[in-house]
Amino acid sequence: MNPSRPGRLEFTFVAGASGAWRIDGVTPVIGESLPDAARLSILEGLVSSHDATWALRGVTGTQRYTTRAEQTALAERQSPIGRAEATQAALIPIRKNDAWWALTQDERRAIFEDRSAHIARSMPYLPAIARRLHHGRDLGEPFDFLTWFEFAPTDAAAFEELLGQLRATEEWRYVDREVDVRVTREVPAER
Amino acid sequence: MNPSRPGRLEFTFVAGASGAWRIDGVTPVIGESLPDAARLSILEGLVSSHDATWALRGVTGTQRYTTRAEQTALAERQSPIGRAEATQAALIPIRKNDAWWALTQDERRAIFEDRSAHIARSMPYLPAIARRLHHGRDLGEPFDFLTWFEFAPTDAAAFEELLGQLRATEEWRYVDREVDVRVTREVPAER
Repeated sequence: MNPSRPGRLEFTFVAGASGAWRIDGVTPVIGESLPDAARLSILEGLVSSHDATWALRGVTGTQRYTTRAEQTALAERQSPIGRAEATQAALIPIRKNDAWWALTQDERRAIFEDRSAHIARSMPYLPAIARRLHHGRDLGEPFDFLTWFEFAPTDAAAFEELLGQLRATEEWRYVDREVDVRVTREVPAER
Repeated sequence: MNPSRPGRLEFTFVAGASGAWRIDGVTPVIGESLPDAARLSILEGLVSSHDATWALRGVTGTQRYTTRAEQTALAERQSPIGRAEATQAALIPIRKNDAWWALTQDERRAIFEDRSAHIARSMPYLPAIARRLHHGRDLGEPFDFLTWFEFAPTDAAAFEELLGQLRATEEWRYVDREVDVRVTREVPAER
């Protein structure tokens, strides 16, 4: 059963021989990597792909930490996915460890924003870097989060700076697996 | 893929001709009901049951609103599922409306606890009423939450009182579908 719910969108990232995005590199940041592949496609729905090198699934939905004030500030600055100039992208699957998931909501929020400034650090990189977050934990996926970032080649250095900042935070001490998949779009934007 | 993660347990509630729990009644509280059936089984895993009257799936996991202080107080008082004396139970599937899911975390927490006192109101009913919460929204299920309550027959009146209190809260104005499934156990506790 899959009733339509606003804000809830299902996506499957499929790595294999075909796809609009050429895979430039697959790098393990923390823990086990993912196998190399030539191309990446992004499919709507939670798809099982039998001839894929790998397929990762996630659903978009409710933000778990963002306040209304932060959401308003983000909404004013953020870019949509699929801008014609955003031909570079990164798919960054991460898993957080059991210690993270044993924390309560107030403890996770304190680490996420009060001490790691996840949202505040990201803000200066908007609107250049577009972002879509997908949740996989409830689905039983190997990664808790899949974040998809898109940007123009001229913003690639800014993106590296943002990643470097996030990876240095207290929040990132709870990440026990992270892979960094870089891709380049070779066909016009589909959406 | 379904890697084992502490705290994440999958359950399927299957209504049909068999099962350890006899269904005493299926009552629509808000919106569309579920079909009547004779018995209910609780299976581990996200199961597809072809001969079921209905099957509802959910995963346990991270609490979304509870603070550490609240979690500590709850942990001191709560009972496990499967007590021998807890022969009465209720499965209460609910869905919250789009307005709820468009709220930010701080707004949802304010309604859930600061104004509706969901945790504080429930506390006096522990340890008599045991409870397990399952999330279905990320799974694409028709209900966002399945709550399973278990209690001894002598605590049935207290349970009705708790339900009446929760249904009168501001939080409940965001519920757009709720069904109340009452069951009685007819075999010894399995776990």
